[in-house]
Amino acid sequence: MTYCLGLSLDSGLVFASDSRTNAGVDYVTTYSKMHVFTPAPDRLFVILSAGNLATTQEVINHIQRDLDHPDPSGGINLATARYLFEAAEYVGQVSLGVQKEHSAALTSSGVSGETTLIIGGQIAGQPHGLIMIYPQGNYITASPETPYLQIGESKYGKPALDRIVQSGLSLEEGARLCLVSLDATARSNITVGAPFEVGMYQADSLVLGHRMRFPEHDPYLVGIHEGWNSGIQAAFDGLPKFDWEEDQLPLTPPATATIVPR
Amino acid sequence: MTYCLGLSLDSGLVFASDSRTNAGVDYVTTYSKMHVFTPAPDRLFVILSAGNLATTQEVINHIQRDLDHPDPSGGINLATARYLFEAAEYVGQVSLGVQKEHSAALTSSGVSGETTLIIGGQIAGQPHGLIMIYPQGNYITASPETPYLQIGESKYGKPALDRIVQSGLSLEEGARLCLVSLDATARSNITVGAPFEVGMYQADSLVLGHRMRFPEHDPYLVGIHEGWNSGIQAAFDGLPKFDWEEDQLPLTPPATATIVPR
Repeated sequence: MTYCLGLSLDSGLVFASDSRTNAGVDYVTTYSKMHVFTPAPDRLFVILSAGNLATTQEVINHIQRDLDHPDPSGGINLATARYLFEAAEYVGQVSLGVQKEHSAALTSSGVSGETTLIIGGQIAGQPHGLIMIYPQGNYITASPETPYLQIGESKYGKPALDRIVQSGLSLEEGARLCLVSLDATARSNITVGAPFEVGMYQADSLVLGHRMRFPEHDPYLVGIHEGWNSGIQAAFDGLPKFDWEEDQLPLTPPATATIVPR
Repeated sequence: MTYCLGLSLDSGLVFASDSRTNAGVDYVTTYSKMHVFTPAPDRLFVILSAGNLATTQEVINHIQRDLDHPDPSGGINLATARYLFEAAEYVGQVSLGVQKEHSAALTSSGVSGETTLIIGGQIAGQPHGLIMIYPQGNYITASPETPYLQIGESKYGKPALDRIVQSGLSLEEGARLCLVSLDATARSNITVGAPFEVGMYQADSLVLGHRMRFPEHDPYLVGIHEGWNSGIQAAFDGLPKFDWEEDQLPLTPPATATIVPR
């Protein structure tokens, strides 16, 4: 399994992914699921992937080949797309093509060749953006009301995200929130795991300002994990009590209390 | 959809369920999913249900009929089961029978008649316990290491549960934790919703001490919801910062600070 997510904030974009892949529980490996493309100085794209690893690798290879050897008839690639959505449509077509190529063989083996992708980034002169590309090649965009997109094992990491996320978060807050969401998911599903990768893109910078990799025992990641655990416990301990519970008593003594000398 | 869960604690059992059922998004109704049976003074059972509503209702009806009209050949029912696991095996057989009865017709309509159940309770002289019954009629038991069982839409409510639950919780703490887990699920999946029901069973009491129903705007439920929201936000705000973030500065002034009179 896999869990990747992206945030589209006022101040820029945050990308996050786990690195665990598995074909059965006895073949677990580590692959980066974050792919960065800067095919021209006026643009940057980050692609996150969840699904069949072979399909994903072939999609990324074909995208790179189209940049190295542009279609002489002027077909679109990441260097020539004029809008982020054109880049998403192009990547969707590449993905669909790869899936179709192997569809018959995979179906007869009972394997799904599907991949779901997130592409985010910016082309100079246009706003930054974040788009999820379905296995069928169509896509949806993040919005101010729904500033995040998730792919893969998305449910465990959603509750914390839903309560905190809003497009006014700083990039750093967004990156921390992504780590919390990844940590929650890895805790509940062993096929999602560290190292976690986080990329932070400041709007209009056209470079990926921070790209961080957090192995399982990274001190900052451990700090987030432990801080969140103790924060959740404190949140739970602070919840209102049922009216029949004894420890409803106020912690400060009543005004009429007298101090008895021993 | 549905979300039900049960906790098996040292001090007793907690049962919790939402009340929303839906057949498509345009037919959403409210049904209790918590069924209490006290067929004899020496025993109490609570059954939670998730899955096909018709199957569940028929299962509950058949269980009650077997109590009203016991099998003259001495077949087991909830009044005659000698162990909680025998009650679970019996309920599993009833469930499987009902599902088989409608299987052909439902399959040809593309509908699943499956239901997953949780049964918990106690028979005098034996420990209290909690068991999940699969649609196939087999079952698993909660344990001190895994003191909770979930059925239905279980993923959204699991992260908070995983971080807090342990068998030493009080019944009240368990009930609060169930409300937090239900609240998280209802927030992320609109087919799970209030009223929430919570039942609390004190070990060896053989009665359901508290059975509570929380409509959406119940003041205590709103208090839990708001307390959890603000607690989560506080937990997030208290997480360690990246080392380049400015607000790493200590909140107390350095020892050399001088106070400038105005």
